[in-house]
Amino acid sequence: MPQDNKLSDKRILVIGLGRFGSSLALELVNHGWEVLGVDSSPRVVQIFGESLTHTVIADSTDDEALRQIGAAQFSRAVVAIGTHLEESILTTSQLVDLGVKDIWAKATSRRHGRILEQVGAHHVVLPEHDMGERVAHLVSGRMLDYVELEEGFSLIKTKAPQTLIGRSLRETKVRQRFGITVVSVKRVGASFTYATEETVLHKGDVIVVAGRTKDVERFAESS
Amino acid sequence: MPQDNKLSDKRILVIGLGRFGSSLALELVNHGWEVLGVDSSPRVVQIFGESLTHTVIADSTDDEALRQIGAAQFSRAVVAIGTHLEESILTTSQLVDLGVKDIWAKATSRRHGRILEQVGAHHVVLPEHDMGERVAHLVSGRMLDYVELEEGFSLIKTKAPQTLIGRSLRETKVRQRFGITVVSVKRVGASFTYATEETVLHKGDVIVVAGRTKDVERFAESS
Amino acid sequence: MPQDNKLSDKRILVIGLGRFGSSLALELVNHGWEVLGVDSSPRVVQIFGESLTHTVIADSTDDEALRQIGAAQFSRAVVAIGTHLEESILTTSQLVDLGVKDIWAKATSRRHGRILEQVGAHHVVLPEHDMGERVAHLVSGRMLDYVELEEGFSLIKTKAPQTLIGRSLRETKVRQRFGITVVSVKRVGASFTYATEETVLHKGDVIVVAGRTKDVERFAESS
Amino acid sequence: MPQDNKLSDKRILVIGLGRFGSSLALELVNHGWEVLGVDSSPRVVQIFGESLTHTVIADSTDDEALRQIGAAQFSRAVVAIGTHLEESILTTSQLVDLGVKDIWAKATSRRHGRILEQVGAHHVVLPEHDMGERVAHLVSGRMLDYVELEEGFSLIKTKAPQTLIGRSLRETKVRQRFGITVVSVKRVGASFTYATEETVLHKGDVIVVAGRTKDVERFAESS
Amino acid sequence: MPQDNKLSDKRILVIGLGRFGSSLALELVNHGWEVLGVDSSPRVVQIFGESLTHTVIADSTDDEALRQIGAAQFSRAVVAIGTHLEESILTTSQLVDLGVKDIWAKATSRRHGRILEQVGAHHVVLPEHDMGERVAHLVSGRMLDYVELEEGFSLIKTKAPQTLIGRSLRETKVRQRFGITVVSVKRVGASFTYATEETVLHKGDVIVVAGRTKDVERFAESS
Amino acid sequence: MPQDNKLSDKRILVIGLGRFGSSLALELVNHGWEVLGVDSSPRVVQIFGESLTHTVIADSTDDEALRQIGAAQFSRAVVAIGTHLEESILTTSQLVDLGVKDIWAKATSRRHGRILEQVGAHHVVLPEHDMGERVAHLVSGRMLDYVELEEGFSLIKTKAPQTLIGRSLRETKVRQRFGITVVSVKRVGASFTYATEETVLHKGDVIVVAGRTKDVERFAESS
Amino acid sequence: MPQDNKLSDKRILVIGLGRFGSSLALELVNHGWEVLGVDSSPRVVQIFGESLTHTVIADSTDDEALRQIGAAQFSRAVVAIGTHLEESILTTSQLVDLGVKDIWAKATSRRHGRILEQVGAHHVVLPEHDMGERVAHLVSGRMLDYVELEEGFSLIKTKAPQTLIGRSLRETKVRQRFGITVVSVKRVGASFTYATEETVLHKGDVIVVAGRTKDVERFAESS
Amino acid sequence: MPQDNKLSDKRILVIGLGRFGSSLALELVNHGWEVLGVDSSPRVVQIFGESLTHTVIADSTDDEALRQIGAAQFSRAVVAIGTHLEESILTTSQLVDLGVKDIWAKATSRRHGRILEQVGAHHVVLPEHDMGERVAHLVSGRMLDYVELEEGFSLIKTKAPQTLIGRSLRETKVRQRFGITVVSVKRVGASFTYATEETVLHKGDVIVVAGRTKDVERFAESS
Repeated sequence: MPQDNKLSDKRILVIGLGRFGSSLALELVNHGWEVLGVDSSPRVVQIFGESLTHTVIADSTDDEALRQIGAAQFSRAVVAIGTHLEESILTTSQLVDLGVKDIWAKATSRRHGRILEQVGAHHVVLPEHDMGERVAHLVSGRMLDYVELEEGFSLIKTKAPQTLIGRSLRETKVRQRFGITVVSVKRVGASFTYATEETVLHKGDVIVVAGRTKDVERFAESS
Repeated sequence: MPQDNKLSDKRILVIGLGRFGSSLALELVNHGWEVLGVDSSPRVVQIFGESLTHTVIADSTDDEALRQIGAAQFSRAVVAIGTHLEESILTTSQLVDLGVKDIWAKATSRRHGRILEQVGAHHVVLPEHDMGERVAHLVSGRMLDYVELEEGFSLIKTKAPQTLIGRSLRETKVRQRFGITVVSVKRVGASFTYATEETVLHKGDVIVVAGRTKDVERFAESS
Repeated sequence: MPQDNKLSDKRILVIGLGRFGSSLALELVNHGWEVLGVDSSPRVVQIFGESLTHTVIADSTDDEALRQIGAAQFSRAVVAIGTHLEESILTTSQLVDLGVKDIWAKATSRRHGRILEQVGAHHVVLPEHDMGERVAHLVSGRMLDYVELEEGFSLIKTKAPQTLIGRSLRETKVRQRFGITVVSVKRVGASFTYATEETVLHKGDVIVVAGRTKDVERFAESS
Repeated sequence: MPQDNKLSDKRILVIGLGRFGSSLALELVNHGWEVLGVDSSPRVVQIFGESLTHTVIADSTDDEALRQIGAAQFSRAVVAIGTHLEESILTTSQLVDLGVKDIWAKATSRRHGRILEQVGAHHVVLPEHDMGERVAHLVSGRMLDYVELEEGFSLIKTKAPQTLIGRSLRETKVRQRFGITVVSVKRVGASFTYATEETVLHKGDVIVVAGRTKDVERFAESS
Repeated sequence: MPQDNKLSDKRILVIGLGRFGSSLALELVNHGWEVLGVDSSPRVVQIFGESLTHTVIADSTDDEALRQIGAAQFSRAVVAIGTHLEESILTTSQLVDLGVKDIWAKATSRRHGRILEQVGAHHVVLPEHDMGERVAHLVSGRMLDYVELEEGFSLIKTKAPQTLIGRSLRETKVRQRFGITVVSVKRVGASFTYATEETVLHKGDVIVVAGRTKDVERFAESS
Repeated sequence: MPQDNKLSDKRILVIGLGRFGSSLALELVNHGWEVLGVDSSPRVVQIFGESLTHTVIADSTDDEALRQIGAAQFSRAVVAIGTHLEESILTTSQLVDLGVKDIWAKATSRRHGRILEQVGAHHVVLPEHDMGERVAHLVSGRMLDYVELEEGFSLIKTKAPQTLIGRSLRETKVRQRFGITVVSVKRVGASFTYATEETVLHKGDVIVVAGRTKDVERFAESS
Repeated sequence: MPQDNKLSDKRILVIGLGRFGSSLALELVNHGWEVLGVDSSPRVVQIFGESLTHTVIADSTDDEALRQIGAAQFSRAVVAIGTHLEESILTTSQLVDLGVKDIWAKATSRRHGRILEQVGAHHVVLPEHDMGERVAHLVSGRMLDYVELEEGFSLIKTKAPQTLIGRSLRETKVRQRFGITVVSVKRVGASFTYATEETVLHKGDVIVVAGRTKDVERFAESS
Repeated sequence: MPQDNKLSDKRILVIGLGRFGSSLALELVNHGWEVLGVDSSPRVVQIFGESLTHTVIADSTDDEALRQIGAAQFSRAVVAIGTHLEESILTTSQLVDLGVKDIWAKATSRRHGRILEQVGAHHVVLPEHDMGERVAHLVSGRMLDYVELEEGFSLIKTKAPQTLIGRSLRETKVRQRFGITVVSVKRVGASFTYATEETVLHKGDVIVVAGRTKDVERFAESS
């Protein structure tokens, strides 16, 4: 199916090479993607001229310009324009009309995100908002990292609590007591490895724990 | 130890109530923290007047203003000012001199982040940059979520691949073949639950997988 | 059916009281409508405070503000914000989400109009564009007014051409010769009255002619 | 008479290629006019470089510039500058002094229009204002289009009302009852055709009705 | 005749209290006129609040405002707005429509002046332009003042030239030789007095000379 | 004496080619002067490139620039910069230090004029102010022109008053009755000519009258 | 003599409370002066409201304002306005005309300083310029401080050079060898005290040396 | 030691060629230093192109730009950017990371200075502030110059007071009476020379006096 082929290709259009767009684009290039980076600022385009596969100076709010850079040939595009609501919406609207199959768009507010969806974006990302919520779990110092994978289900990275040290996870009955699973363990000076029921935690170990958000938070607080 | 007591309190100062700061502050209030939200815009402060514990209109670049709102009484503060480099740095510098123990600061560029560290911030966050890298792993559609918990060690959420369906994880030898661990499973219509060696995957299951970044990526690509 | 009742009411929300919005609102008031006029400028609202049924100073891009003025209670709204694309789109998006049944929105460009449709506006108006096309038919001086009622079917107002004067329309076979119908006639010093086959045109009469655009244009040129 | 010859030519000067000016200019080109489009923005002039007969970048507020582009050779000109009152007036004043016979000028307010007349413009157009009044008649949904051809005499497009369906116009005595004339009829899937006394309306027909404004409005309301 | 009475009254409306307007208004007050000074700046109006007969803060580009201050009651008005072409023209246009009999308007360029005349101003003044030409005659140092009273006829103030000193004007035949008339003489330390044929000039006398511009200039150069 | 030679030359530097500066410069060129016109705007300099003897684009606030254009070689200069106080003062200060003998400077306010004198300008002109005062004498319509040649001594142009018509000036004893002198007379359709005691005034004559300001004003009022 | 009394009083007017003005004003208050601080910014005046003797919000470029605050009563004033050349000059000009005996004015460039002198300031200070030259002597690290007290005569603070340690100044013949005088000595942990011929320098001593600039520089370099 | 060699070289990087930076750079060039002057303004760089050893146009806030001009090769740098806090901090931060050994930075406020220190500047200068304090000692007219060399120890230049004239310093016991030392004396018309106990002061002598700040001030006041 040509449709599928199209989606399985590793070519992507990234419009807007600010902080978000450029980080995304560079990461994709590192993973073997062919990235066409677009920005209206010649200076910005020059900076990424060597690190991205292709770059082009263009005003993405101009229908004609998007057509000329061949936006319609891409099955995937990222609208990484964040500061100017208007440009973000104009660009997304045009990509929709050009028939791009998979459009990711960055929003700066919930309403902005809603409009992008109404216009036809397939995925909307709110970096400032999401990172704000994520960091909220880290400021107490009890968690070293926090991710909510599904509403109500989270993963955290934390130090192994005193009460679990020296015995196997089976013995400490951590799953029964907290409703959580210790997924991985990292010894001091070593890398992460997966944890089993037999794993014995040591002082200084960093562990990754999965479970319902309320449970992993209670677990972190308890330490 | 009063010092420790201080750090174990659940009071925090959040300066700058933009997208990042307000999301963070609201999340903390939801988790029972006492948040003092500060912004120089009366309109912004009014918006959050009811949802945050305390709010105050103040110019955080003014030494005297920070002193008057009692910034020195806080053991934790978040400088969530992102647009104006200058205000972000001035505010952080003053919080350092006021003796705040744990300062989180948002940066918009690596150099900005570096200066915040030189000035004395304890944690620096780059939302646009981090989210850019994170979304880069999702655009192919193979992963539903991606988190790098440590350099070289990641967790992903993905659909159960065809080749693993119908047999237990032990039988499919997924750990040996891919070097990854299936951590949790989510049946259609159900919540996440932890996976064991005996877990049998069904069509449509969403799984969380942990392992070395290269391995989890290879696993996702294989599906 | 309350739904129908709702649409048959004569209450309307007009957001933006510039040239277009205010002319529209005043005309509606003259026809017995109950108009709630909204503008973010206190000065503008003051000007129309007496001539419109209700007026309110509000920033229509603010969700909360729209809710407070009871926008959801209206079955009809006009978004007459033209200068700022962003405000026009934000406002329309919110009215859609508030469930307003019939939304008219003014656009300044085709792309702007397209986005308003994507967001959910039911009718889009392009005053500058439409008037530009309309005036194009008048500059030759042969037509006194021109309206395209359907693609390819138009009405024009023009002076009675010399060749039709002094005989009845039946005699001049104007319908056969030009493929058009003389709809109305206006004698010097009198009002318009409908034309019949027996109508005899006099020098100085102004007539309204209907027909296919090409035909009415040919008719006008011939005079 | 060379004077008349001059006015019968199909050459026109359009100053200002914004929404109004460009729509007007393109429509004229489509009807075989020779259009010289003028704008002070190089970018705008470039956009219309291919679609208009001639284009020129010039500051029309500069006497010398207008002279150089040969404005005095035109018998017709449109001043389609709307945003800047000052430029609109300066340009019109100079065209008057250059002896242009027929000057159309766009205004943004009644006072602006008045000044253009005082300065010497022959026709003044108020797009935003006129469209606002026109749309006011459409929002109820009873009319599909509305044009006031003369103060107190209008044409509307509307759906054939229930009470007129199935009988000839003569039988329904629509002219006697409402004081209006049904001018044209459009069957579902067909084009407009002129109506006679024998025309029988069907469900779904769209009709064009002419008459005194009060009468056509009463007719539309009654449906 | 009330009309004439109206014009013989000593009431005047001065709109714009900048350098030109305020100097004019103060001079008129000194000569017993009743001056209503209008400016849109509260600060400016405050400054002249005590020295002018009446002052009012108003935006003269607003029809309603002009009506409220009773502009229509004045038979004379000065539009002393110079910096903003638009405001100057708007104000003048409204005064014309309000029926003010005698309108003086300041212009900053010839085209500005032309538009003011087209709009209906009765007298147009160009201070910068006129003073530039006047000072041009003084820079050589030969004339102390210069006024062109009519095209080609001027008055100058100059020092009595060496060749005329010690004899009566009749004897020096200054009128025959230069075609000019010595109008007045000012002795050192005394005031001006009129000159006759018998007047004898002394060293240091300042004289006023009238004549054709070419002649008075030749006379001044000769000294 | 080279010094004197220098002052008697007809070379002049005019800095600032706005309304005042350009009118002055053009008038001087018409009288045979060699004018070097200086302005910082390339567009302005281009406009006067052909009509002035020499023109140069230069920032006159820059010491080096003034030196390079040879400002020190001029014995006369006009600083016709009016809008920007700072530039006017900087330029004047430098001309003083370069040793220019005769500096004329335009001021926009009395304080500005005072500073120019303190800095070393030899003559200060206030066009807006002076023209304001002058026009004040004309608005009544009784004088056609007015010039104050010395504090308390003025010349006016006015229509010959009814009471003086038909008899010689000697007979009407105008000098005794009003303390003024009729200097010149202009018959309808003719040029000005000097008046003598025998001159008989006719209806429609325009006369120039000299005398003490109070007297000439009283004379004008009496007419 | 009241004049002298006036100058011996300790009252001073400081206009402009920026960095320079406020530092100066506070230092004077510390030494018992009565300072009237003036600034046009209400916020700035509020900041110094308690630390200065009197403060007043006023626009010092306004003649009337200066008169009202009693500027003429002061025998000393400091014009510490630096950013806006125009305000600095206007203020100084008015203080001169008000008869202030001793005016200190801050300049930002040599030309600015020159104008202040032309206008009548008695002392002109160039902080940026002077500090730039002073710091130039310190960057080599050989001098700890440097002051030129008179053209060609300077004082420096420096570490006692190795070659002078352990013997009296008389013995080391420092005056003969370098042409400089060791004025004061500061032992580690002690204060400065004056040096005599008998003073013996120790390692770590800091000394103040006076002499011709060339000599003290050579001395510092030698260490 | 290469380190020391590096610091003993006379090469320096001066970033920012405003008043402070350029004065410093020119003074260093006069003393034989090799100065690389950097500014982002081409015009400023052009002005100093001939007087400094090397000049370069560069945006010092750009990491790459600083690297390209070889900033890392310098052991000494001066950040003379004062107006823009942000640029000053960014530049300093980068110089620190490039390993520059000795960084001098200009600050405009105490907080700015504090941040520069936190970021890693080795010396911070506050010109406006320091000059303000210094001038405060001069306005009374009793001191001709004033320098505080150490907190509480100062040097002043003043006129020899009446009471010390005509006798040797030993006889007048100035050291005992005032606690100060007369360091140098300058006769009228001569240069400074060092003072000894035998020095006899004459009327008009200018002297330099060292001592505790309180003592030298009391001494100056006594005169």
